[in-house]
Amino acid sequence: MKNTKIRAVRITPIAFRDGPLLNASGIHEPWALRSIVEVETSDGRTGISETYGDEPMVKVLQQAASLLEGLSPFELNVMEARVRATIRPGKAGDGSVQFELAPGSHTAKNADKVISAMEVAMLDLQGQMLGLPICDLLGGAVRSEVPYSAYLFYKYAEHADKPYPPDAWGEAVTPAQVVQQARTMVEQYGFRSIKLKGGVFPPEQEIAAMKALRAAFPDLPLRLDPNANWSLATSIAAAKELDDLLEYYEDPTPGQDGMAELAKHCRMPLATNMVVTTMEEFRRNASTHAVKILLSDHHYWGGLRATAALARMCSVFDMGMSMHSNSHLGISLMAMTHAAAAIPNLTYACDTHYPWQEEEVIRGGRIQFHGGSVKVPGEPGLGVQIDPVQLARLHQQYLDCGVRNRNDLAQMRKYDPGFAGVSPRY
Amino acid sequence: MKNTKIRAVRITPIAFRDGPLLNASGIHEPWALRSIVEVETSDGRTGISETYGDEPMVKVLQQAASLLEGLSPFELNVMEARVRATIRPGKAGDGSVQFELAPGSHTAKNADKVISAMEVAMLDLQGQMLGLPICDLLGGAVRSEVPYSAYLFYKYAEHADKPYPPDAWGEAVTPAQVVQQARTMVEQYGFRSIKLKGGVFPPEQEIAAMKALRAAFPDLPLRLDPNANWSLATSIAAAKELDDLLEYYEDPTPGQDGMAELAKHCRMPLATNMVVTTMEEFRRNASTHAVKILLSDHHYWGGLRATAALARMCSVFDMGMSMHSNSHLGISLMAMTHAAAAIPNLTYACDTHYPWQEEEVIRGGRIQFHGGSVKVPGEPGLGVQIDPVQLARLHQQYLDCGVRNRNDLAQMRKYDPGFAGVSPRY
Repeated sequence: MKNTKIRAVRITPIAFRDGPLLNASGIHEPWALRSIVEVETSDGRTGISETYGDEPMVKVLQQAASLLEGLSPFELNVMEARVRATIRPGKAGDGSVQFELAPGSHTAKNADKVISAMEVAMLDLQGQMLGLPICDLLGGAVRSEVPYSAYLFYKYAEHADKPYPPDAWGEAVTPAQVVQQARTMVEQYGFRSIKLKGGVFPPEQEIAAMKALRAAFPDLPLRLDPNANWSLATSIAAAKELDDLLEYYEDPTPGQDGMAELAKHCRMPLATNMVVTTMEEFRRNASTHAVKILLSDHHYWGGLRATAALARMCSVFDMGMSMHSNSHLGISLMAMTHAAAAIPNLTYACDTHYPWQEEEVIRGGRIQFHGGSVKVPGEPGLGVQIDPVQLARLHQQYLDCGVRNRNDLAQMRKYDPGFAGVSPRY
Repeated sequence: MKNTKIRAVRITPIAFRDGPLLNASGIHEPWALRSIVEVETSDGRTGISETYGDEPMVKVLQQAASLLEGLSPFELNVMEARVRATIRPGKAGDGSVQFELAPGSHTAKNADKVISAMEVAMLDLQGQMLGLPICDLLGGAVRSEVPYSAYLFYKYAEHADKPYPPDAWGEAVTPAQVVQQARTMVEQYGFRSIKLKGGVFPPEQEIAAMKALRAAFPDLPLRLDPNANWSLATSIAAAKELDDLLEYYEDPTPGQDGMAELAKHCRMPLATNMVVTTMEEFRRNASTHAVKILLSDHHYWGGLRATAALARMCSVFDMGMSMHSNSHLGISLMAMTHAAAAIPNLTYACDTHYPWQEEEVIRGGRIQFHGGSVKVPGEPGLGVQIDPVQLARLHQQYLDCGVRNRNDLAQMRKYDPGFAGVSPRY
């Protein structure tokens, strides 16, 4: 074991089908991008991870690949130091699209994002070498299954470009359609809490949807995420109607200052994956304590160990913890599940886009949910392996699809050429 | 490996010889107390750790012992939850001596202290089972050896009670004697930085000692720790003379407020193991940022993983990190060494009382220093084992010595019946 060294790191960008899901910035493109990381050792093992696939990210991952060569899979701290010393934030004009609502697109987070991708693959190797699931390398599971929430989206029935047949979900614009989407998702996955991605339609329409969800699911916790697309005044006005409806109020309005002011006007706790996405922002929020629930995401917080440390910080600063997601496949879902299993104070059901994906890159196809939860795997490492045929196919889709950076705004203008994309819109 | 369970936890209090070392509270008694923890598994392994040995601590350790039975050594998070749910802070009148200058004596920290003791023994088991040194379970070593500092004490030549022949160090009261002690220690251990435990004699005398040390060791970083025995005014006045002498100024004056005011009057950074000893105090200091260097101590901060998380917090809040010690033997020294090896931002040489001890509980006798550093062990687990003959002997010493709670104040009154022990004294 002492002599096992990393001999190569392979980065493979992939693209998979993604539905016409609406959000504050616009609409999802037909293809979502991810990178698949494979870390190979001298004794023939391969550790894997999944992360962002936009072009600037692929570039820094490739730049970091050689930094791991010769390291033991146990040298996580050395890997982290090397990446921090080498991988720099992106620069203006480097082609990156810095997405306000998707912190994973921020190139200022390049080092943390790369560290996370490499760490997960190295932990997968450790687990394989030791015969232990990753959660055992994080202090052991405190729960045998990890609950996820039903992540509802406003959506159109079909992509403007019609690159492939429409999905089975259909249109969801009205409150009744949102409730129908929730019913389908809860039936298929067993979810026990519900989140709606808002910031799309006028607040009255979204509040009506939340009320319809409450009527249809009287016992399930509800969350609404307008993605900072509501002004402070709108957010305060809406709070009066949402205070008794929501488990938490996620990023209705932009900025820590706005959230801090809003906090004075509502009883429900505020949650975020937009105004606390770095340690500096954590530090600032610690002094105002405006946001009470942090949506963690190991992909940009520096990995699974850093997320566990972040959880301890949340505990110190009296913050609750939930988990954020972007469009992802099963490798990320497994990493999220191991992290959540080993974090005692991650007590809210985690977000996941997983039901919106139909394709998979792992062997054995899509991961099963039971009662809204994913069972914590007991197999060594992550507990999932790459299906090389699917990886090749999804990489070919990447090569063919032409998308290189997520751009929900440009995509939205295909439906509505006058779409301004100014935020906050309401 | 999956079937390996903890079947028993054994707590053995021990006493070992300790010199007549002076500090702000009084003077060390002839016997220092520790507890040795042995965690046995169903497959016949024993994981070990070392922690405080005062009576209230022995009691909570024994209370916690059964909480581990049936757990896998990998279930650190479950162990932590069980201990937190069961082990309570001490109560007034429970016989505990709450030592201002020794945070490890605070019974409010009972749960964190017990978690640490159990975690280290469980990590030792993990390492043994996996064939990996503990530092590899903490992300891997970022340094191959851990530097410690020469920890100088004012001392008398002999204990008042004369329970055994005097040590070889002799008296250290004058600046010249302090320099001689430093010379001996640097020669024997190779230390490359020097700390003086102050707060004993009038500040002029201690400042004179620091100046004498500077003259004798022009290249070595110096530290002075008056253990909050100086008033704010005295600390400010002394800062003028110490600003160009010290690497850091450790706890000259009591309380976060005092330290915050002092910080405005000195250029050298303030360090502490007295005003930031809990997460609540960390949080408060984060808002004032008065103390710039935290002296960590896994024994009361909740273990090695919690110390690594604390290090990440120090990084977020722009604090440096050093390491605190109490009188200890080689098991603690090894745990400290693994932790320090795996914490990138633990960049100051660590404190250790180790040169002041002559006895040992581990096989093979006392741990060697080279160039002031301890080599990070590559053997599985902690890398040290208990010598059962020595453990029995030191336990017998515990039974015979009669000391059950450290009480430097009562001991000092044997030399000086009028010793008030009021702090700050100067």
